[in-house]
Amino acid sequence: MADKIFRVNMTDLSTSLEDVPADWAGHGGRGLTSTIIAAEVPPACHPLGPNNKLVFAPGLLSGTAASNSGRISAGAKSPLTGTIKESNSGGTSAQRLAKMGCKALIIEGQPKDDVWYSLSLTPEGVTINTEDELIGKGNFAVVEGVEKRCSDKIGILSIGQAGEMQMSAANISVKDPDSHVRSLGRGGLGAVMGSKKIKFIALDAGDAKVDIADPDAFRAANRAFTKALVDHPVSQALGTYGSNVLVNIINEAGGLPTKNFSAGQFEGHEQISGETMHDIIVERGGKPKHGCHSGCVIQCSQIYNDLKGNYKTSGMEYESIWAMGADCTVDNLDQIAEMDHILDDIGIDTIETAVAFGVAMEGGVLPFGDSDEMIRIMSEEIAKGTALGRIIGNGAGSVGRTYGVTRVPVVKNQAIPAYDPRAIKGIGITYATSTQGADHTMGYTIATEILGVGGSADPLSKEGQIELSRNLQIATAAIDSTGMCLFVAFAALDDETCLPALIDMINARFGISLNAADVTNLGISILKTEHAFNQAAGFTNLDDRLPEFFETEPVPPHNAVWDFSGEEIDSFWNF
Amino acid sequence: MADKIFRVNMTDLSTSLEDVPADWAGHGGRGLTSTIIAAEVPPACHPLGPNNKLVFAPGLLSGTAASNSGRISAGAKSPLTGTIKESNSGGTSAQRLAKMGCKALIIEGQPKDDVWYSLSLTPEGVTINTEDELIGKGNFAVVEGVEKRCSDKIGILSIGQAGEMQMSAANISVKDPDSHVRSLGRGGLGAVMGSKKIKFIALDAGDAKVDIADPDAFRAANRAFTKALVDHPVSQALGTYGSNVLVNIINEAGGLPTKNFSAGQFEGHEQISGETMHDIIVERGGKPKHGCHSGCVIQCSQIYNDLKGNYKTSGMEYESIWAMGADCTVDNLDQIAEMDHILDDIGIDTIETAVAFGVAMEGGVLPFGDSDEMIRIMSEEIAKGTALGRIIGNGAGSVGRTYGVTRVPVVKNQAIPAYDPRAIKGIGITYATSTQGADHTMGYTIATEILGVGGSADPLSKEGQIELSRNLQIATAAIDSTGMCLFVAFAALDDETCLPALIDMINARFGISLNAADVTNLGISILKTEHAFNQAAGFTNLDDRLPEFFETEPVPPHNAVWDFSGEEIDSFWNF
Repeated sequence: MADKIFRVNMTDLSTSLEDVPADWAGHGGRGLTSTIIAAEVPPACHPLGPNNKLVFAPGLLSGTAASNSGRISAGAKSPLTGTIKESNSGGTSAQRLAKMGCKALIIEGQPKDDVWYSLSLTPEGVTINTEDELIGKGNFAVVEGVEKRCSDKIGILSIGQAGEMQMSAANISVKDPDSHVRSLGRGGLGAVMGSKKIKFIALDAGDAKVDIADPDAFRAANRAFTKALVDHPVSQALGTYGSNVLVNIINEAGGLPTKNFSAGQFEGHEQISGETMHDIIVERGGKPKHGCHSGCVIQCSQIYNDLKGNYKTSGMEYESIWAMGADCTVDNLDQIAEMDHILDDIGIDTIETAVAFGVAMEGGVLPFGDSDEMIRIMSEEIAKGTALGRIIGNGAGSVGRTYGVTRVPVVKNQAIPAYDPRAIKGIGITYATSTQGADHTMGYTIATEILGVGGSADPLSKEGQIELSRNLQIATAAIDSTGMCLFVAFAALDDETCLPALIDMINARFGISLNAADVTNLGISILKTEHAFNQAAGFTNLDDRLPEFFETEPVPPHNAVWDFSGEEIDSFWNF
Repeated sequence: MADKIFRVNMTDLSTSLEDVPADWAGHGGRGLTSTIIAAEVPPACHPLGPNNKLVFAPGLLSGTAASNSGRISAGAKSPLTGTIKESNSGGTSAQRLAKMGCKALIIEGQPKDDVWYSLSLTPEGVTINTEDELIGKGNFAVVEGVEKRCSDKIGILSIGQAGEMQMSAANISVKDPDSHVRSLGRGGLGAVMGSKKIKFIALDAGDAKVDIADPDAFRAANRAFTKALVDHPVSQALGTYGSNVLVNIINEAGGLPTKNFSAGQFEGHEQISGETMHDIIVERGGKPKHGCHSGCVIQCSQIYNDLKGNYKTSGMEYESIWAMGADCTVDNLDQIAEMDHILDDIGIDTIETAVAFGVAMEGGVLPFGDSDEMIRIMSEEIAKGTALGRIIGNGAGSVGRTYGVTRVPVVKNQAIPAYDPRAIKGIGITYATSTQGADHTMGYTIATEILGVGGSADPLSKEGQIELSRNLQIATAAIDSTGMCLFVAFAALDDETCLPALIDMINARFGISLNAADVTNLGISILKTEHAFNQAAGFTNLDDRLPEFFETEPVPPHNAVWDFSGEEIDSFWNF
C-alpha cells in the first residue's frame, strides 16, 4: 500500500487521505516537514494563528529494522523564533506512523470555539474527537489516561499545560517504549499544537508493516551499519555515561557556560557529571544504559531513580543537565532530575526554560543556585500559567525583554545551549547561521572541535570553522530526513563503511539507487528551502549574529571573545 | 556665545562641552537627535546596553518668542521597537536648553555599579550627582523634590518607576509651566534613561537668552505666523475641546478602534468625547484651554479636575483617551483621568500601556471595560514591577507574546494608535512605513482624510494615500526639527502665509536664507537617515507591514480590510 498524506483541518474539522505529491516522495523527516511548511505556510503568518500548519513526518527508514531509525520530525513556523522549525525525537511514534503508511500528518486551520480535541490515527485515516477529561493535565497523566482508554501498544504525541497555554518554549511529548516521554523539544511546537486545540494524537498502526523492496540487501546493510555504530568509541561512551559524559569534557575545555554565560568552567561540574550520574544510577538500581526507541544500539538514555530507588526520570541529556546545572549554578543532580521530571510533565523545553531561569537569576528574579525556588516556580507558576510562569515559559528572550536584562544568550530568540561559542568557536557559527535559531544539533561541530571525530579543529581558532559548520549542517539536514538519530554521525564521520551502509538501506527500502552525492544534495536543498522561508519571513544576514555581549565580554578561563566578523559569518551561505 | 554639544559619559562619569560639528549645525530637534544617533550608535547594539546613547535637542526655534516653538526632542535606539526613535514634547525644557546654549545633550555609556545619578545643566556645562532620596518615586514627587531643592524656575526631565525598571513603554517626563508633566511618550526612551541610571536632569538657564540675528524680521514673521495659527478652524477646535474633539469625529467615520480593534465604533463614545469633557471641565472649575508651554497660541491642553474640583490631570490627548476608553471599552472620563494621572506619575506611555491592556483583555487577563482592575494593575503591579506589571509595562507586543494572543495591533512592536487603518487607510501607510513603528504623528494623514485639511482624500480608498503619507512624513520630519508643535501643520497646509513665515523666522534667528525646497530636503534627508539606521539594525521592507489580522478581519461598520499589497507599501520609499 502506497504511503499517504494524512491531512486534518481544524477549522472545519475535516480530514483526508491524499496521495503523496511526486516532489515530496523522496523526502522524509525534516526534509519533508520543511518542504511542506515552505510550500503551504505563508512565511509572514502569525505562528499561533490559523495560517500556520503543524506537520509530523517519520524518517525515510522509520518503521524498518534499521538500527537507530526511530526518530520522528515535527515542523511548523516557530512561535519562539519566527523561523521555519524542525524538531525531532525518539519514542514510538515514528515507527507507528511509518507502519500505518503515513508519510506525513499535516494539521492546519484552527477551531473558532474553545473546545479541545484529540486525533486518532490508524491505517484507515484520522478521526477527530472532542477531549475534556485530560485538559489541564500533564503529559504523564495524558499517557496514562490514553493508554487506559486504548492500549499500551499505541503511540502518543501530546502536550502538557505549557502547550495548552501556548507558551513559546512548549514542546510536544512522544511516548517512549516504557510509557515515559521524549520531547520534540525546541522552538515551541507544543504551542502550535495548543493553538490547534489538540491535546494529544493517538497512533494505532495495528499489525501494519513497512514494505522493504529488497529485504536481503536491507538486512546486510543494516548489519554493516549496526557494526559501525557499536564499534565507535563515542557510541560506547554514550552507552555508559549518556550524553552527560560531556560535562567534564566541556568544563575541561573551558566552554561550559556557567552562571548565565559569565564563565566557561563550573566549580560544581563533578557533582553533575556523567560519571557521578552513572554511579548514582547504579547505586540506586536504575539503568545507566537505555534506548529511547526500539532498535537503538547506542542506548544513551538512562533510568534515573530517586533516593528511595523509585523511578524519577529518564533521557536526561547533557544539554538539559548543563542548563539546569552550570548555567543556573545548581550542583545537585537529584534536584536536576526533579526539574527534568516536572518540565517533561508540563511539556516544556528543558534547555530553553533553564536558560530562561539563568537570565531571570541575572535579572534578580531569584538567586543563582536556588533550585528549590526553580522547582517552586516550575510547579506553581509555569504549570499554572501565572504571569511569572508565562514570562519564563516563553523562553530566555522573553525573560530578558521583560526584566531589561542585556546579557541574554539567544540567537533568533532561541536559547544558546551548553557550549560557549567564545571558547568553542565552530559551534558559534552553527548557532549564528542555523535556520532555526541557536541549536547545537543543527551542525554539531563539537564532534570535531572537542571529540576529534571526523578530523580535528582548534576550538579557540576561527580557522576552518565556517566550512566545518557548513559541512555538518548539510549532513545533518540529510540525516534528520532518514529517521536516524544524530548520534549515528560519529560513526558516519569516522568509519567509511557506515554512510554507504546507511545509503544501501534507503535504496533497499525503496528500490532506488541513491549515492553519497545525492545525500549531500538533499542536505543542501533542505537548508536552502529553510533559508528561503526565513528570508521570506523577514530574516536577513543581520539575524545571523550572536548577542552583543559575546563580542565584548571575555569568558574565563581562556578569556576568549566571539570575533567572527559579519562578513565572515555571511560567507557560510556561499554554497 | 556659540551653541555647544553637552556630552556626558556615564561609564566614567566624565562630562564635556564640545563645539558643534559643521554638519550638525543646520539641525535641531528630531533632525539633530536622529543625525547624532545615526552617527554614533551602532545600529545592532542592545538598546539598554552601554553602546546606546540618549540625546536631547531643542528645536531650531526653541527658546525664542516664536509661537508654539517649545518642543524638545529626545532620541535613541528604542528598546520597544529596535528602530531609531525620536519623541518630542512640550513643557519647559526645550526653552531652557536652547537658552543655555545647549544644541544637544548626549548621554552615553553606563555605570557599572548600582548607583543612581542626576544631571544638572547650566550654561557652564553638566554636573553629575549621585541620587538617593528620589529613587523609586514617581514623577510628581520628583518634580516637587527637585523644585524644593533648587527653584521652580528650572526645567526638569525625569523618569518614574517604569523608567527605573527599564520597561519598554517607559517615557521621559518634561515639567510643564504649572509644575505638572508632559511626556516624551513613545518608544521607551525612559527605559534608556533608566539604563544610564539617571533619575532626572535639572535645567537651569539662569538669565541666558537666545540670540536673534535679525530681531525685526523675526518679530514680523512671528506675527504673520501667529495669525495663521489662531485663524485656522482646527486650531480653534483644539483650543475648545482639545485633541479629544476627535472622539466623535473618528467614531462617526467608523475608524475608532474599539475592543482591541474589533470594531470601528464605540457605543460609549459620547461619554468620553471632547464635548463631554469640555462640559465636565467647565462644571468643575477646570480649564478647557491651556498651553503646555509658554508661547503656545493653540492651547489644546486642559486642566481636568475631579468631582470635588481638585486638580486631577492635564494634557489628556485624544489618543490616550481613546486607548484607555474605546480600546478597552471604558466609558468613564473620571476613571480615564485617574489612569492618565497614574501613568504620568509612573512615567509610562499612555497609548502603549492602554493598548497593552486591550490585548491583555483579549487574552483573558482581565475583563474588557474593567477600569477598576486597570487602575489596580497600574498602581499595584506596573508601579511595583511585579511580573504582570512588567508584562504590561513592556507594551502591547509583550502582552501578546506572553499570553499567545494573535490579534496584537503593533507595527515594529509599537502599539497602533487611535485610528483604524482598515477604515482610514492613509494612516495605515504611515503606521507601516514610519521609521519608528506605528505612530500617527509621523505623518498625520487624518488631517486630509478626515478633517479636509490640505485637500481631501477618501479614507476608505487606497487612492493617493501613499503619496499623502509620504508628503506628510517628509514635512513632519522637518517640522519636528524646528521645535514647533505638530499642530502648526493644519495652518501650514491650508494657509499660504504660514510656512513662509515659519521659514522667515528660522532665517531671522540664524541669519541664513533657507527656502521651502530646503525645508523639504531637510525632511527627506532626516527620513533617509532614519531609514538607513533601521536597515543597518536589520529591518527590511517586510517589517513595513501591518499585523495579519487587519488583512483578514473586516472591521465594522464599513467592513473594510487592510488591502495594500506589500509592493504598494514598499513604493512609499521611492523618493
